[in-house]
Formats: sequence, C-alpha cells, structure tokens
Amino acid sequence: MSASTPENAPGLSRRDFVVGTAAAGALATTGLSAASSPSQTMIKDTYLVHHVFFWLKNPDSAEDLEALLAGIRGLGEIPQVKGVHVGVPAATEQRGVVDNSYSASEILLFDSLADQEAYQSHPLHQKFIEDHAHRWDKVVVYDTVLA
Amino acid sequence: MSASTPENAPGLSRRDFVVGTAAAGALATTGLSAASSPSQTMIKDTYLVHHVFFWLKNPDSAEDLEALLAGIRGLGEIPQVKGVHVGVPAATEQRGVVDNSYSASEILLFDSLADQEAYQSHPLHQKFIEDHAHRWDKVVVYDTVLA
Repeated sequence: MSASTPENAPGLSRRDFVVGTAAAGALATTGLSAASSPSQTMIKDTYLVHHVFFWLKNPDSAEDLEALLAGIRGLGEIPQVKGVHVGVPAATEQRGVVDNSYSASEILLFDSLADQEAYQSHPLHQKFIEDHAHRWDKVVVYDTVLA
Repeated sequence: MSASTPENAPGLSRRDFVVGTAAAGALATTGLSAASSPSQTMIKDTYLVHHVFFWLKNPDSAEDLEALLAGIRGLGEIPQVKGVHVGVPAATEQRGVVDNSYSASEILLFDSLADQEAYQSHPLHQKFIEDHAHRWDKVVVYDTVLA
C-alpha cells in the first residue's frame, strides 16, 4: 500500500477504489458509474467517524502497544462497526500543528448515532476497556458526522 | 445513511461494504471473497489517514463554517487524495474524554507518505490555506499509518 500510482496512468489505477453497497443479497456497484470521482466514495458517505487517540502509560513498551492494537482490531467484530482503521503516528513532517505524541489511533465508522451508542455499551467494547484501560494514561475521542 | 440494519438480516446487508481495487483497467472485487468480514474492508487497508480539526475564530458564524467546509470538500480534487470525509462534531454523549469543541473535521486518505507530502505542496492545498486560514484560530493535525 505504500507505492504510489503515476498520476498519468490511463484509465483506472490503484488509486481508483470502488465501493459497492450490497443490499438484499444483491451486489450493487453503482458507486463506480454514479460518482464522478470514484476514488472519493470510500469514506465520504460514512455518517459518523469515531476517532480515538490513546497515550500509553509506558509509551516505550512494544508489548503494551501490540496488546492495545490487537484489542482495537477486535472492536471490528462489533456488528455496528462498519469499518476500522488501527494505526500509529505517521512519520510525516513534524510541523507545529501536527500532534504525533499519541501511541495508538482507533478509527471506527458508524452509520448512525444510535449505532455508536449501541457500540459504547456492547459487551465486546466493555471488555476491551476492562482489558486495556490499565495500559493508557490518556484518551481523546473525536466524534464527527458528515457535513 | 442513518438507518441501521437488523443484525439478523440474512446474507449481505447494508452493513456489508465491498471495496474493489481497480488495477490496470480491470475491475477486481476480491475484497468480497477474500475478507472474512467484508464490512471491514472499507478503510482498514488505507495506509495513511490525515485527520485535521479546525477551530474557527468565529465559531458561531454559519457563513465561515460553510465556506471552510466547502474548501475542505475541494481538497478531494487533489489527485493524491484517495478519500475525503468532511464533518462537524457529532451529537454523541458528552463524556469527559470526548472533544467536540472544534468547528470542522477534515479526513483525507493517502496511499503513502510521499502522497501526503505531495498533497501538502499541491497548489490546490496551498490555495485552500490562502483562502481560509484567516477563518481559523487553531488547527490540530493527526497523521496515522496502518499498524
């Protein structure tokens, strides 16, 4: 995923993603033809993005980090979660506005506020907190809905 | 997008998204069969997530907010940007860890660090800063790569 595609590549390229919504058992791929810019359909229609940053108590502990990342991945099993991205700070240019002090990033996608609320009280989420809260010093959550 | 799907719906449902990567002009839909949980393929393979939060100087100005949101949407035209989500704070439960003090959220997806760097210096991004920087009081950027 780290290779970039030449901008002058003809036709469809690696940077063209197609999101099809499969409804009632039928595979719909209207995202390709309906969107003027197919590559933009991957996330732009997601209603709610739940982005959580974790600061570990022991930021140098690879073991704690791996355990937390594995825990975050497990949250994808919760039915209301429509997408998950598990990450660590990027080695992008360190400008003053960039905060790369966190240990782990969790992005979860939801279709509705109700789904996010159901996720909060889901047993798997509660178990995640039980299992991992002792590892983190600080958590910051941003909940964002489509504008 | 705000309706949720019953968890017991048979087969594919609205919460099953398929991401196909179209390469060399051929449409590949391997995401469906290869992933054990198709609904998770939407964002989980995105290499770099660039999430920016803006605090407006005049947070009560609907005009400033709309102008900024329109500007963020325009960033999706930059070729290196593989996905965009433009948002405002969600009306989720106000817990202590949730920061909903920002005015606007910008999520951009990239395939590589190099693409994110190219985006930073792209004329459309530079023009966005020129056109809108006077509106914001604070910006916080989080760059996250797949773990």
